[in-house]
Amino acid sequence: MCEADAYLLKDGQEQLLMESVDVVEPEEDGTWRLVGIFGDQKTVRGKIKRMNLVNHRVVFESQTE
Amino acid sequence: MCEADAYLLKDGQEQLLMESVDVVEPEEDGTWRLVGIFGDQKTVRGKIKRMNLVNHRVVFESQTE
Repeated sequence: MCEADAYLLKDGQEQLLMESVDVVEPEEDGTWRLVGIFGDQKTVRGKIKRMNLVNHRVVFESQTE
Repeated sequence: MCEADAYLLKDGQEQLLMESVDVVEPEEDGTWRLVGIFGDQKTVRGKIKRMNLVNHRVVFESQTE
Protein backbone atom coordinates (compact mmCIF):
# COMPACT_ATOMS: atom_id res chain seq x y z
CA MET A 1 0.00 0.00 0.00
CA CYS A 2 1.19 3.43 -0.89
CA GLU A 3 -0.26 5.63 1.76
CA ALA A 4 2.00 8.30 3.25
CA ASP A 5 2.64 9.88 6.60
CA ALA A 6 1.79 13.56 6.94
CA TYR A 7 4.01 15.92 8.87
CA LEU A 8 3.66 19.54 9.89
CA LEU A 9 6.80 21.65 9.84
CA LYS A 10 6.56 24.13 12.68
CA ASP A 11 9.40 26.13 14.13
CA GLY A 12 11.86 24.03 12.16
CA GLN A 13 10.54 20.74 13.57
CA GLU A 14 8.56 18.12 11.68
CA GLN A 15 5.70 16.86 13.79
CA LEU A 16 3.81 13.75 12.73
CA LEU A 17 0.25 14.81 11.93
CA MET A 18 -1.26 11.61 10.67
CA GLU A 19 -0.13 8.19 9.56
CA SER A 20 -1.36 6.17 6.57
CA VAL A 21 -2.87 9.03 4.60
CA ASP A 22 -4.58 8.07 1.37
CA VAL A 23 -6.39 11.20 0.18
CA VAL A 24 -5.13 14.80 0.33
CA GLU A 25 -7.63 17.34 -0.93
CA PRO A 26 -7.92 21.12 -0.65
CA GLU A 27 -10.99 22.55 1.04
CA GLU A 28 -12.66 25.79 0.06
CA ASP A 29 -11.54 27.52 3.25
CA GLY A 30 -7.89 27.01 2.33
CA THR A 31 -7.28 24.03 4.59
CA TRP A 32 -6.37 20.53 3.46
CA ARG A 33 -8.46 17.49 4.21
CA LEU A 34 -6.52 14.31 4.91
CA VAL A 35 -8.28 10.96 4.76
CA GLY A 36 -6.54 7.89 6.11
CA ILE A 37 -6.76 4.38 4.74
CA PHE A 38 -9.27 3.50 7.46
CA GLY A 39 -11.49 6.49 6.66
CA ASP A 40 -10.24 8.65 9.51
CA GLN A 41 -10.01 12.33 8.65
CA LYS A 42 -8.02 15.33 9.71
CA THR A 43 -7.90 18.95 8.60
CA VAL A 44 -4.62 20.79 8.23
CA ARG A 45 -4.15 24.51 7.98
CA GLY A 46 -1.01 25.27 6.03
CA LYS A 47 0.58 24.75 2.69
CA ILE A 48 2.31 21.77 1.14
CA LYS A 49 6.03 22.14 1.46
CA ARG A 50 7.12 18.91 -0.19
CA MET A 51 5.88 15.46 -1.00
CA ASN A 52 8.15 12.47 -1.39
CA LEU A 53 5.91 9.70 -2.56
CA VAL A 54 8.60 7.05 -2.74
CA ASN A 55 9.46 7.83 0.88
CA HIS A 56 5.78 8.03 1.87
CA ARG A 57 6.07 11.56 3.16
CA VAL A 58 3.87 14.64 2.78
CA VAL A 59 5.15 17.70 4.62
CA PHE A 60 2.93 20.68 5.36
CA GLU A 61 4.18 24.02 6.56
CA SER A 62 2.35 26.26 8.97
CA GLN A 63 1.35 29.52 7.42
CA THR A 64 2.54 32.53 9.31
CA GLU A 65 -0.15 34.86 8.07
CA MET B 1 7.58 1.66 -5.25
CA CYS B 2 5.01 4.26 -4.39
CA GLU B 3 5.41 6.85 -7.06
CA ALA B 4 2.23 8.30 -8.56
CA ASP B 5 1.00 9.42 -11.93
CA ALA B 6 0.21 13.10 -12.31
CA TYR B 7 -2.81 14.28 -14.26
CA LEU B 8 -4.01 17.70 -15.32
CA LEU B 9 -7.75 18.28 -15.29
CA LYS B 10 -8.57 20.62 -18.14
CA ASP B 11 -12.01 21.19 -19.62
CA GLY B 12 -13.34 18.27 -17.61
CA GLN B 13 -10.76 15.83 -18.99
CA GLU B 14 -7.86 14.32 -17.08
CA GLN B 15 -4.74 14.38 -19.18
CA LEU B 16 -1.70 12.38 -18.11
CA LEU B 17 1.07 14.85 -17.32
CA MET B 18 3.79 12.60 -16.02
CA GLU B 19 4.22 9.03 -14.87
CA SER B 20 6.18 7.75 -11.89
CA VAL B 21 6.33 11.00 -9.95
CA ASP B 22 8.29 10.89 -6.71
CA VAL B 23 8.61 14.52 -5.55
CA VAL B 24 5.94 17.22 -5.74
CA GLU B 25 7.13 20.61 -4.53
CA PRO B 26 5.80 24.15 -4.83
CA GLU B 27 7.98 26.72 -6.55
CA GLU B 28 8.14 30.37 -5.61
CA ASP B 29 6.39 31.43 -8.81
CA GLY B 30 3.30 29.45 -7.87
CA THR B 31 3.99 26.46 -10.11
CA TRP B 32 4.64 22.91 -8.93
CA ARG B 33 7.84 21.04 -9.65
CA LEU B 34 7.41 17.33 -10.30
CA VAL B 35 10.42 15.04 -10.14
CA GLY B 36 10.15 11.50 -11.44
CA ILE B 37 11.84 8.43 -10.05
CA PHE B 38 14.49 8.67 -12.77
CA GLY B 39 15.21 12.33 -12.01
CA ASP B 40 13.18 13.72 -14.88
CA GLN B 41 11.42 16.98 -14.06
CA LYS B 42 8.35 18.84 -15.14
CA THR B 43 6.71 22.07 -14.05
CA VAL B 44 2.95 22.36 -13.69
CA ARG B 45 0.95 25.54 -13.48
CA GLY B 46 -2.23 24.91 -11.53
CA LYS B 47 -3.44 23.80 -8.17
CA ILE B 48 -3.74 20.39 -6.61
CA LYS B 49 -7.27 19.13 -6.91
CA ARG B 50 -6.90 15.77 -5.25
CA MET B 51 -4.31 13.18 -4.37
CA ASN B 52 -5.11 9.51 -3.96
CA LEU B 53 -1.91 7.96 -2.78
CA VAL B 54 -3.23 4.42 -2.56
CA ASN B 55 -4.33 4.71 -6.19
CA HIS B 56 -1.07 6.45 -7.19
CA ARG B 57 -2.83 9.52 -8.52
CA VAL B 58 -2.13 13.24 -8.18
CA VAL B 59 -4.58 15.44 -10.04
CA PHE B 60 -3.83 19.08 -10.81
CA GLU B 61 -6.36 21.56 -12.03
CA SER B 62 -5.66 24.35 -14.47
CA GLN B 63 -6.14 27.74 -12.92
CA THR B 64 -8.58 29.90 -14.77
CA GLU B 65 -7.10 33.18 -13.58
